Parts: sequence; structure tokens; C-alpha cells
Amino acid sequence: MSRTVRLALVGLGNVGQAFLDLMVAKADLLANRYDLALVLTGVADSSAAALNAGRLSPTALRAHKGAGKPLHSFPGSTPGMSAPEMLAEVEADVLLEASAVNLKTGQPGLDCVRAAVRRGMDVVLANKGPLVHAFGELETAARAAGVGLAYSATVCGALPVVNIGRRDLTACDIRSVAGIFNSTSNSILAAMARGGSYQDALRQAQLDGIAEADPSLDVEGWDTANKLVIIANSILRQPCTLADVQPVIGITAITPAQIQAHAARGEVVKLVARAEPDLAGLRNVSGPQYRLSVQPEWLPADAFLVSISGWEMGIVFDTDIMGLQQLKVDERGPIPTAAAMLRDVISLTMDH
Amino acid sequence: MSRTVRLALVGLGNVGQAFLDLMVAKADLLANRYDLALVLTGVADSSAAALNAGRLSPTALRAHKGAGKPLHSFPGSTPGMSAPEMLAEVEADVLLEASAVNLKTGQPGLDCVRAAVRRGMDVVLANKGPLVHAFGELETAARAAGVGLAYSATVCGALPVVNIGRRDLTACDIRSVAGIFNSTSNSILAAMARGGSYQDALRQAQLDGIAEADPSLDVEGWDTANKLVIIANSILRQPCTLADVQPVIGITAITPAQIQAHAARGEVVKLVARAEPDLAGLRNVSGPQYRLSVQPEWLPADAFLVSISGWEMGIVFDTDIMGLQQLKVDERGPIPTAAAMLRDVISLTMDH
Repeated sequence: MSRTVRLALVGLGNVGQAFLDLMVAKADLLANRYDLALVLTGVADSSAAALNAGRLSPTALRAHKGAGKPLHSFPGSTPGMSAPEMLAEVEADVLLEASAVNLKTGQPGLDCVRAAVRRGMDVVLANKGPLVHAFGELETAARAAGVGLAYSATVCGALPVVNIGRRDLTACDIRSVAGIFNSTSNSILAAMARGGSYQDALRQAQLDGIAEADPSLDVEGWDTANKLVIIANSILRQPCTLADVQPVIGITAITPAQIQAHAARGEVVKLVARAEPDLAGLRNVSGPQYRLSVQPEWLPADAFLVSISGWEMGIVFDTDIMGLQQLKVDERGPIPTAAAMLRDVISLTMDH
Repeated sequence: MSRTVRLALVGLGNVGQAFLDLMVAKADLLANRYDLALVLTGVADSSAAALNAGRLSPTALRAHKGAGKPLHSFPGSTPGMSAPEMLAEVEADVLLEASAVNLKTGQPGLDCVRAAVRRGMDVVLANKGPLVHAFGELETAARAAGVGLAYSATVCGALPVVNIGRRDLTACDIRSVAGIFNSTSNSILAAMARGGSYQDALRQAQLDGIAEADPSLDVEGWDTANKLVIIANSILRQPCTLADVQPVIGITAITPAQIQAHAARGEVVKLVARAEPDLAGLRNVSGPQYRLSVQPEWLPADAFLVSISGWEMGIVFDTDIMGLQQLKVDERGPIPTAAAMLRDVISLTMDH
């Protein structure tokens, strides 16, 4: 009775490794609850790829990577084989794309998705790059090929923002969206509110393993803008790319003096993404409906967005017939994002 | 290209009438966004039924009911025809069950659902009664008949609590659930916190049209318990009925003196539904996993549940791999619940 789904995983960073952990930890639950068996038949990162039409062991691969060893020394791997090359050969039902975001070109994730769709594989993305660069192309190609394209992991990790917007707010006009989508920036702002400079807070976040060595994607607002672009394309039905988010301003210029001055007035700073009615666009039927922006905002202390504290991410949907919906998630580390990829795998499998 | 879905509506109270409003107001959006045309081919309430294989006019029916006239005086209606009798004859694809909750037997809604499933119709419920009394029977019957059974309107109106639990927290172990599911009780408690007795707050809520003339379902906790039973059956996979929720305590015994005393300690009272690990049940593999309860709780002022203010409803899911997810909705009147029924109609149609 049990259904076997073969997976090809691209990217073995924190999220890819967490997905391997979940494959092992949740195998019994998937069998019992969904009659579902997941097997790994291909894997690739920037150094190598490995293929096995039978199955690769997620346990062995996770232990190998966990010991700090590169994929090219994993038994059976092919050093120098690229992810698209692996995808041209692998026998798999689903591509899991968990490689790092490339803001400039979306590559090599974009070519991986194209290759998988061409071969009739469903695609599950944690990597925002391909969507931000080519949302319309990929949706059209997936529909034409009759494959699924799922990416609930790309916005707010395990909080099902994309799914709620697409599957639940179905007959709504969404008046506006506002959200806090980057927990690194949110944590740094929270640390600054407790005292200390931006540089001190950033350094501590890096020591704690929260912030990347190069934190620019997070603190300069681009990660937040990426997520807003995905929401605009998928939920608001407004074709757009990063160039359409204006302004994109991060948190690097926020000073402790500003924070103190606003605190005295009961205001708190947050890095906020917004989609709001674009009055200029609305006058032109073919123009955009929403104005997209990412910037720090000083908000009253009792605002829902302010209640999204250090580690959390969240969103507010203001709708015409489904009220004001406010959602947030407190999650840590890469497991919840990997769990969102697993949710997408299950959902695609159940739909077919 | 457009797909026509024929609807049979049972119940013409606030929610049923709001659904008629949405059929008219959202007809263009449904056509443009989903290639979907909804037509009404049958309708029933406790006084009469009307059938028309072509179509009944939602505009005319809404105007008739809005003028305070009974269904049995609507042109073409059959006085005394029951809802199950209408369902035995109607040519429809989907039953919309929006009649009043019957706590004792779930009838006549339960027989309506049975009749629709037997005839191969999908079922969309706003009425909790049939689910609370016979969740397992109805799920099994729907599966056997190959029809859809959707009820996202039954818990927290337009907030997609059921859908998130079933479709998004898929591979999770849910550690606990806590929620505020009854906005009438929540509004009364908010009014009492501003000063005034329970009786005064109730009377004002009745004058404002918030509370029913017989408010017992709301203020004695049964509406909240109904929703918890649906969550337990559908999301937590724990077969249960109202008898398994213990205790069920409402807000009628809360006094202004208690509220003031707790306020001095920074505590706020809320009517809280909880599903928590049942340690006795866990020791017995076949026993229940969750202990279900509804009762007033005194919570610290900064708790998320306390932020669910007067008019709002909301829920907290504590999960193993998808973090702590906290959701709330601010909605008024019957439109959002009707919108949730419309969401279910769209979802069932897209799935087939």
C-alpha cells in the first residue's frame, strides 16, 4: 500500500542537512500517517554529486556532512559533477532545492528547477533565488509540464504564509500585507533595544551563530524583499522582481540614540515589508495594484508587528471578506524550514 | 471554459444570507480568478424548501429574506418540505449546511449531510452540530462515497485553523493547542474588564446584536467546546465528542471583583480551550493522547492569548518541528464565516 517517493536534494547546507534529519526522524510517522516512504536517489552541492537509483542513506550522508566532510569524499560521489548534471541523470520524483540564494542571477538553482521541470519532476524550493528571478517563467513551465511547484518554505519558514494566501484567502481582495520576515534583523533590533550599538548586536549575533559571516542579505533588507517578491507574485498575483521593491532599506543605519528617543514616545523599530494599494497603478488598469517596500518603521508598542519579538517572524493580511488575519511563528534553526519542505513533499504527493 | 457548480443551501440565517450576498458580490472574481460559476439549485430552512434545476436567484432570495419574509412565501417554494426532502430531489454538486447548531442530536443537519453524501454531493459545513456528533461516521462515509467534506468555516470563521492543522502542520507532532474560539464571550469579558457586571455586559452585547437572546451556547462554553471537538477529531486525530471535553466551564460566574483583583496582579481572564498531553492516556497506547478542556483562565497580560482582544478569535499550535505558531483574526458579522464556506467550495472544486 505504501507509496515511495524518490527525492533529489540540491544543497547540503543547514537546511539540506536538517531535511536529511527529518527523513530519518519522521520515517515512521510518514509511513503510519500518509503511507509514504521517502527515498533519496540523488544529491548535489557545489563540489560534487552522488546518484543511486536504489537509495542513498540519509543517515550516512548526514553523518558525513555533520563531521565537516565535503560531499566529494562521500562514498560513490562524483567530484565536480554539477547539480544540473545530476538532475539530468537522477531517477527521482521530486527535486528539493535547498541551495544558497543567489541574488544576482538565481543560479544555479534556477537551472536546477528548469532541468527538473523538463524531466517531469515536481519541485520543492527552500531557495528563494529561482522564484525571485523567474516566478512567472517557472509557474508557466510547471503548469505546462503538469508538475507541482511548491515553495511554502521560502517565506517565514514553517509558518504557512504562502499556503494561507493561495489556498485559504481564495475569494478575497487583499487590501494590504505587512510583515516581519527576517529573524536575524529582528533579533539584532531587539538586542539594540536592550542597549548596545548595531555593530555590537551584529557581532553578538554572529558569535551566537544567528547571523552569517556576511550578513548583508539579512541586515540590508534583501532577504525580506525576496520574500515580499514571492508573496506579491504568488498571493497578490502581481508579476514582479526585486527591482519592483522600492525602497529596500535595511537596519544598518539605526542608532541607539534613535531607539532611545522613540522608546520615550512608546515606539519600537521593526524592519517591515509592506504591500499597499498603489494609487498610481490602480488608475492604470494594466499597472501594478500594490506598492512594495522594505524599510525600518517606528511603530506603537501595542502594534501586532511589535509583538513579533526577537526570534519570531510574522505577517498581517488585511482582507475584504476574511477580516484582519495576524500570524506569527517562533522557530529556531533550520529544522522548521526543512519541515516546510517536507510539508510540500507530502502535499504534492497527496494531490497526485 | 468556465465550470459551473450547483449549490444546495440549507439554513437561511445570518450565515446563509451572507453566503447569498457573496455569491452575487464575488461572481465576477470567481469567474476571472477560478473560471468558476456558482448557481443555486436548492434551498431549505425549517419552514420550507425551494428547488429549481435551472437556478434560483440569490439576489431575489436574499431580498426576500432581508425583508423579513419566510422562505415559504418565496415564489416557487414548497411550504413544509424539509431539508432532507429537498436534498433527495435537488440536482446539486455541493451541499452548504448553514443551519443552527443542535447540541443534543446534531439534527437536522446530520441527516442533511448523510443524504448529500449518499447522493454523491460534496459537503461544506458551517454548522458544527453534525461534526460534533458524528465526525468519524461522516469522514468515513465521505471517503467511501468519494466526496469531499469541508468545514473550515466551523472554527474561528475565516481564520483557516482547520486547514492549517490538516494541510500545513502535516509531519508535526502537535504538543498542545490553546485557543479563544468564541467572540461573544471574549467581548463580554472585555466589557467587564472596562467595568460592569456580567449581566450588564451581556445585556449590552444583546442590545448590540452580538449575543443571542439565548446566549447559553456562547457564555457557558459549549460553542468553544464544539470547536475544540472538531479540532481534536480533525487535526489531532483523536476521536471524541462533547462528552470528552472536561470540564466545560463558561464565563457566567466571573465577577467584577475577581477581575479587579487579578488585574492588580497583571492578570487577565480569558475563556480558553486547551488540548494538552494526557499522561494517563499516553500510558495506555489505545487511550486518548490529549486532555480536552474549556474554562476561564487568568493569564499574564503579555500572553498571546490575552492579545486576542474583544472581537478577535485565535489559536496557538505548539509543535515539535514547526515551532510555535500563533494566529488570530479580527472579524465581524456573518460574512467571514460565509467567506470560509466559499473558500471550501472553491477548494473542493479545484481538487476534483
